[in-house]
Amino acid sequence: MSAPSRPSARARIAEPLSIGGVQFADVTEFHRWFAGVADRTHMTVERLGLAELTGWAQDEATGIIRHHSGKFFSVESLDVRVTSGPVPQWSQPIINQPEVGILGILIKDFDGVPHCLMQAKHEPGNHNGLQLSPTVQATKSNYTRVHGGRSVPYLDYFRNPAAADVIADTRQSEQGSWFYRKRNRNMIVQVPENGAAADDLTLEDGFCWLTLGQVYELLRVPDLVNMDARTVLACLPFAGVDVVVSDNAPAEQTACLTSAVGASTDFESALARSRVAERGLHTTGDVLSWITDTRIRTDLHAERGPLAELRGWQHDGARIFHETGRFFDVIGVGVDAGGREIASWTQPMIEQIGTGVVAFLVKPIDGVLHVLMHARTEPGYTDVTELAPTVQCVPQNYDVLPAAARPPFLDEVLDAAPERIRFDTILSEEGGRFFGARNRYLVVETDLEALPAQGDYRWLTLHQLAELMRHSFYLNVQARSLVVCLRSLATASPGPRGAY
Amino acid sequence: MSAPSRPSARARIAEPLSIGGVQFADVTEFHRWFAGVADRTHMTVERLGLAELTGWAQDEATGIIRHHSGKFFSVESLDVRVTSGPVPQWSQPIINQPEVGILGILIKDFDGVPHCLMQAKHEPGNHNGLQLSPTVQATKSNYTRVHGGRSVPYLDYFRNPAAADVIADTRQSEQGSWFYRKRNRNMIVQVPENGAAADDLTLEDGFCWLTLGQVYELLRVPDLVNMDARTVLACLPFAGVDVVVSDNAPAEQTACLTSAVGASTDFESALARSRVAERGLHTTGDVLSWITDTRIRTDLHAERGPLAELRGWQHDGARIFHETGRFFDVIGVGVDAGGREIASWTQPMIEQIGTGVVAFLVKPIDGVLHVLMHARTEPGYTDVTELAPTVQCVPQNYDVLPAAARPPFLDEVLDAAPERIRFDTILSEEGGRFFGARNRYLVVETDLEALPAQGDYRWLTLHQLAELMRHSFYLNVQARSLVVCLRSLATASPGPRGAY
Repeated sequence: MSAPSRPSARARIAEPLSIGGVQFADVTEFHRWFAGVADRTHMTVERLGLAELTGWAQDEATGIIRHHSGKFFSVESLDVRVTSGPVPQWSQPIINQPEVGILGILIKDFDGVPHCLMQAKHEPGNHNGLQLSPTVQATKSNYTRVHGGRSVPYLDYFRNPAAADVIADTRQSEQGSWFYRKRNRNMIVQVPENGAAADDLTLEDGFCWLTLGQVYELLRVPDLVNMDARTVLACLPFAGVDVVVSDNAPAEQTACLTSAVGASTDFESALARSRVAERGLHTTGDVLSWITDTRIRTDLHAERGPLAELRGWQHDGARIFHETGRFFDVIGVGVDAGGREIASWTQPMIEQIGTGVVAFLVKPIDGVLHVLMHARTEPGYTDVTELAPTVQCVPQNYDVLPAAARPPFLDEVLDAAPERIRFDTILSEEGGRFFGARNRYLVVETDLEALPAQGDYRWLTLHQLAELMRHSFYLNVQARSLVVCLRSLATASPGPRGAY
Repeated sequence: MSAPSRPSARARIAEPLSIGGVQFADVTEFHRWFAGVADRTHMTVERLGLAELTGWAQDEATGIIRHHSGKFFSVESLDVRVTSGPVPQWSQPIINQPEVGILGILIKDFDGVPHCLMQAKHEPGNHNGLQLSPTVQATKSNYTRVHGGRSVPYLDYFRNPAAADVIADTRQSEQGSWFYRKRNRNMIVQVPENGAAADDLTLEDGFCWLTLGQVYELLRVPDLVNMDARTVLACLPFAGVDVVVSDNAPAEQTACLTSAVGASTDFESALARSRVAERGLHTTGDVLSWITDTRIRTDLHAERGPLAELRGWQHDGARIFHETGRFFDVIGVGVDAGGREIASWTQPMIEQIGTGVVAFLVKPIDGVLHVLMHARTEPGYTDVTELAPTVQCVPQNYDVLPAAARPPFLDEVLDAAPERIRFDTILSEEGGRFFGARNRYLVVETDLEALPAQGDYRWLTLHQLAELMRHSFYLNVQARSLVVCLRSLATASPGPRGAY
């Protein structure tokens, strides 16, 4: 992890596998390449006291932690009152990052097979250092070079795309428990297989081409496909990429229904049907009306304020922590990196206490797989509530909360028989702001009775979820990750052509 | 306008026309009924100085005008900085009304023909007193009875609808130049023709049943169909109402395409095709990407603040006005009403200076009618930009603004040959907050070349606009009104069955 960047190494590894860049016959080849990148790049991270950070200062009067440039983000406090839920009022530290960054994946066909341009990238919060990231992952401070670093590779494909190349382009929220109204622009851009744009596309060190099938296979590796990659992939419309571009939905539907018939298990058939089911247990109109109702019914007051004297939290100069020791800490880190925009910096981060559980309960209803979605309020959401996974929590936090706060369906997930667990992998949250934040992502098939309306829960099809993700702020970031996990189950053994 | 309410009058007029309520063979019958309501109800409005208002007070330090209950709304100031547009910075008074009200229309079939339950309702700002309003038009203060008035008729149909009855249900913005993030819940609820809900539905005084065709015909009467009715009707999905409920889009598409073939003019054929054209000059994906881009590219800072010492505005105790005499005034009114929740009150209002021009340029492209939409930023929008009409302005304001501020396409609209003008009626804005605010609404067929991208303008089909209106904050209130005007042109002579 300490060797400097050696560009020649990339070429040596890449060439035997290459069709115009780093590509892989299978994921074993990918792992070999990825280990090579890890060998020749490094990032060392050490914990620092908040008072030791360079370029960051705590305002004497308010306690708010800001960068001297006024850019990047600040750590403030949030006073929360909410009419729904078992905890009606609390205070907490929160990250305020008003800039809208770009998370983008570039797609290009090789011999007719779409490939995603992915990056092996270090982030200080990644507990294993290197993870698989989207083509571009840049804050505005980042790509306007506030820190005076290197330019962001491939950024122009996203800042100035031809309209015809844009497959997905929508702002989406991130963790509403830790971020105040953070949103990023999630983009998928496709360059034609041939032509000037394709010819100009040269592979930078640390980047590789993966089929979607390979990315889906890699999702099962703990802490590998990072959060930013997952949230972008979630926005991929259901269709072969070329079909999407021509907006030709009926053609895809036919193809999918055919594959449903040919699917090898009931689960796979139900999943394939779910991709094309415009109407499930509920019409989309009913779902939209339910979302409207929850957003109006829930009275959320979230007021930003000074960080000093935050009720229930302590600040010992080194870190900010809850007096129960639960939830999360605000810590400082010092970073020394090779192969990034700049070589070293310090910053505050949020450290989640404990590993979370993020789960979809799913169930075929009339042969169509449905997902039990939860209309969840988090204080940092732009629009009060978003659709969240069936279960999303850190179980140990409930030791210090009222018994009524224990999340519904948590035991259903934790006690599920092994054969009902369709997906179960620990994945990391964003390593640029969160220090070692990891959640166990599960897709569990349930035999619970699917009631039409279960409080703040509704059963939706994958098609309905995909339609909602064309618009901003309907699905939260954990649900978007799980949608990708669920989509990855569509083929038992994805080959290089992958599954869309 | 001064006689007290005489309930017996309603029954006398209604019965000869009635099928279970006040219905009309044609709009002449409607006008007779409407005149009857006007005869037996009244509202008198007098101008008052802001200092003379009862129950409203101006904060001594900030100048902010508030109701003593803390409810209803306040008049504050907004400091605006925006990166796009010819005026980069200004200050103005603004209404802050954070509560989400309900605007709802109840629909019920009579002998298989859907009818809208409409109300003849006075508002203090209506320059002609009585206008045709939706079934329910209630602020939260209103329906939770902060002012201790009567209950709102039919409210329960919207507060507790059966899911299957909800045809449209979405929050939509209102004037972003005068309101700070105001939004109302727009709902269309259908009760079955027969059964308990239908039996319980008795007609209150001042209410009537109109077919959609009749409402469309009445749209051509100046200042009759009010803004709230228009914004709700805009949310009606394209389909026979029963088809909508079953989410059976393909059936409607077939019906519409058939009617396009049978339409009597090229314009009508193009309009009929526009209702079903999922893809026009742009794919919906491209449209969504364009909206995402404008919302991220436009840096809007709108900060609420004290009303005292607002730069460029004067307050003489009676009213607040711009030093140029343009834009709008904040005035006070005293209201004395019969047949409303309470009998008299005072309140501040906004008085628009001059009559505005609100216009769609439309054009068949490949036989499908397209509307030229403008991505417009108004300081009070929740999400930076919304799609607005091609032209939306008060022309005389531009006498005092830089020449570059003169809106594109304004002359194209004002100089249009008569045969190109498809719709041209003066309609009122909401009379509860705006005093005599009227705009000339036009639909003009243009022979301008339809370029794929024209700065902040794009050509969209009616189907694309209807899809966007299923979600919040895509179309502004003026555009929603014009969508209804355009939809009303679908049949040359709408009969009682109307057009959907």
